[in-house]
Amino acid sequence: MKRREFIKGAALTGVATAAAASSLAKPAIAQGKRELKMVTTWPKNFPGLGTGAQRFADRVTNATDGRLTVKLYAAGELVPPFESFSAVSSGTADMYHGADYYWQGKSKAYNFFTAVPYGLTANENDAWLMHGGGQELWDELGAGFGIKHLPAGNTGVQMGGWFNKEINSLEDFKGLKIRMPGLGGEVLRRIGAAAVTLPGGEIFPALQSGAIDATEWVGPWNDLAFGFYKVTKYYYWPGFHEPGSTLSVGINKGVWDGFSKSDQDLVTSCAYAENNYMYAEFNARNGDALDTLRNKHGVVLKQFPDEVMKAIGDASGVVMSEVAKTDEITGKVYKSFIDFRKKALGWTSYAERAYMQARLLPFKYSD
Amino acid sequence: MKRREFIKGAALTGVATAAAASSLAKPAIAQGKRELKMVTTWPKNFPGLGTGAQRFADRVTNATDGRLTVKLYAAGELVPPFESFSAVSSGTADMYHGADYYWQGKSKAYNFFTAVPYGLTANENDAWLMHGGGQELWDELGAGFGIKHLPAGNTGVQMGGWFNKEINSLEDFKGLKIRMPGLGGEVLRRIGAAAVTLPGGEIFPALQSGAIDATEWVGPWNDLAFGFYKVTKYYYWPGFHEPGSTLSVGINKGVWDGFSKSDQDLVTSCAYAENNYMYAEFNARNGDALDTLRNKHGVVLKQFPDEVMKAIGDASGVVMSEVAKTDEITGKVYKSFIDFRKKALGWTSYAERAYMQARLLPFKYSD
Repeated sequence: MKRREFIKGAALTGVATAAAASSLAKPAIAQGKRELKMVTTWPKNFPGLGTGAQRFADRVTNATDGRLTVKLYAAGELVPPFESFSAVSSGTADMYHGADYYWQGKSKAYNFFTAVPYGLTANENDAWLMHGGGQELWDELGAGFGIKHLPAGNTGVQMGGWFNKEINSLEDFKGLKIRMPGLGGEVLRRIGAAAVTLPGGEIFPALQSGAIDATEWVGPWNDLAFGFYKVTKYYYWPGFHEPGSTLSVGINKGVWDGFSKSDQDLVTSCAYAENNYMYAEFNARNGDALDTLRNKHGVVLKQFPDEVMKAIGDASGVVMSEVAKTDEITGKVYKSFIDFRKKALGWTSYAERAYMQARLLPFKYSD
Repeated sequence: MKRREFIKGAALTGVATAAAASSLAKPAIAQGKRELKMVTTWPKNFPGLGTGAQRFADRVTNATDGRLTVKLYAAGELVPPFESFSAVSSGTADMYHGADYYWQGKSKAYNFFTAVPYGLTANENDAWLMHGGGQELWDELGAGFGIKHLPAGNTGVQMGGWFNKEINSLEDFKGLKIRMPGLGGEVLRRIGAAAVTLPGGEIFPALQSGAIDATEWVGPWNDLAFGFYKVTKYYYWPGFHEPGSTLSVGINKGVWDGFSKSDQDLVTSCAYAENNYMYAEFNARNGDALDTLRNKHGVVLKQFPDEVMKAIGDASGVVMSEVAKTDEITGKVYKSFIDFRKKALGWTSYAERAYMQARLLPFKYSD
């Protein structure tokens, strides 16, 4: 998905690209308690993303006993959701919680810090960010806009989507009207699909009327809430477009630099904690929701043929190498990401993947 | 592995099983700074585990600017490694960092809070603990010993091990002398292997002399350091015995209850942060190390046949159901774990597993 589309009136319009004037950040300080304004790209308490943003805010507030009180503003409450980046850059807000691929208008490099087609899983992305040079590149990218970024949540692998027609071969994607925005949509256009962008609220009626043949959204937990199962029964796997979307906290660089080393460490630990906790929540809730979709609503899971997944892989490679050429920092990030991806696959293929594959063998584990 | 075995002289001897007298905990308080003693089951700065324990200690110390100073004692410095549990239970130490399956002498239920054969992956275990009722059961279990437990690290999937002979069928496991302690070793005995327990320092010569045919240890990062590649070239995958070992912080219940709500939240966020960060480190370093083992040292990766992995699965199921019957709380934990495992597999099979499988298709992603 691109979450911005379910927020009415949201538009990622041209905001100033200049680096932040850090000195503009004027946090409220009263009675020894400092209030930090956190804007978000999510509706208030939107399950998983909005609730996770609130938890991050609460983690900081609670761990400091309110000395740093992070006050959350839902999308549109202080600034429109897609002005969160410029609000933090300029110091209108102290921080944001969002998905950094929303800022690809600033630099395509931001895509790599959320998710890219056939890229890294949540675990691999954490490994790249925390131990593979990713955070240093994110810092370099953010410095140009006066923002310090930290990972603070993950959705895990997103599903392939809801389809009104079966996909038995690559041919079935030709002319397929599918709602898929961003780089994923671009990849599908390369294999002949008519990928379109639709606001969240328009997807259900479009699927019902046949105006579109298919749509992706997030995963079982959020998809169940949207009710797509009422108008289509084919739920395809695996997704390729967002294999582990990292959510992030962006902090005004002046505010960040003004923190004591101790507070920087505290905020970082709170971000990592939510990075872990949100992903765990998506896994738990997706497990429940997929069970409900299949056993209560009769949803049929279908697997994309290998032929299709391979063609999507080739097209993803082409799109990503084009993305790499858009500016210097994007090229640099791409190189680090691709190098890390090779080694990551060289490990996780024999580890998590292989274990989960073996676990599907028909043995009896419990009654 | 069972890490205790590389620590000479360590023995999990019978310590008092009585619940802790919480009032015994007398943390040092001086100049507004409170020192908390943290014992560990790891040698000082042992890569991944020891360094992760130190990082957790530093997270708390730094985030509080030393108001809570966590002082780490390596294995044997304050108490022998396997007396860490009773030291915290009795209040001799304020907390420990270790692996809770070391305490299975107290209750077999502790196995489920580290890893069990063919159990949950790191991500699934987080989901169970944080959002599936696991932490509540851990609290119930720990309350009986006066300890509050929190997840604070993970190794990810451990490798199948180093073999001097090829495994082409289930028959090849009959009589195989393999070093594998704990529940994993018990499972292998059920399929006919002669599973033995050996201290870490004795594994290398035993493998070299042919006294054993095979051994497991941890994963590429730690295994490379141990030099097993010098005496054997077959490195088998996937592992089944520890699919995602959670490390934990155990805190004296009196100390925990005496913390303000704010400090409880802070310590919890620091534990979750390290839970995330350590797992990311294992993934990054294992990627590097496996690359080195294969391309520099000529190690040959080999896959266990499906027939073997299936037989191990059946045996794991039998062993786990026996474990479940050892005491009441273990039965209760087992039920929760098994129920969660079913739903977890119903999701991750279509998510991370399926995505990682598709990513192996022969497409061109980069030059």
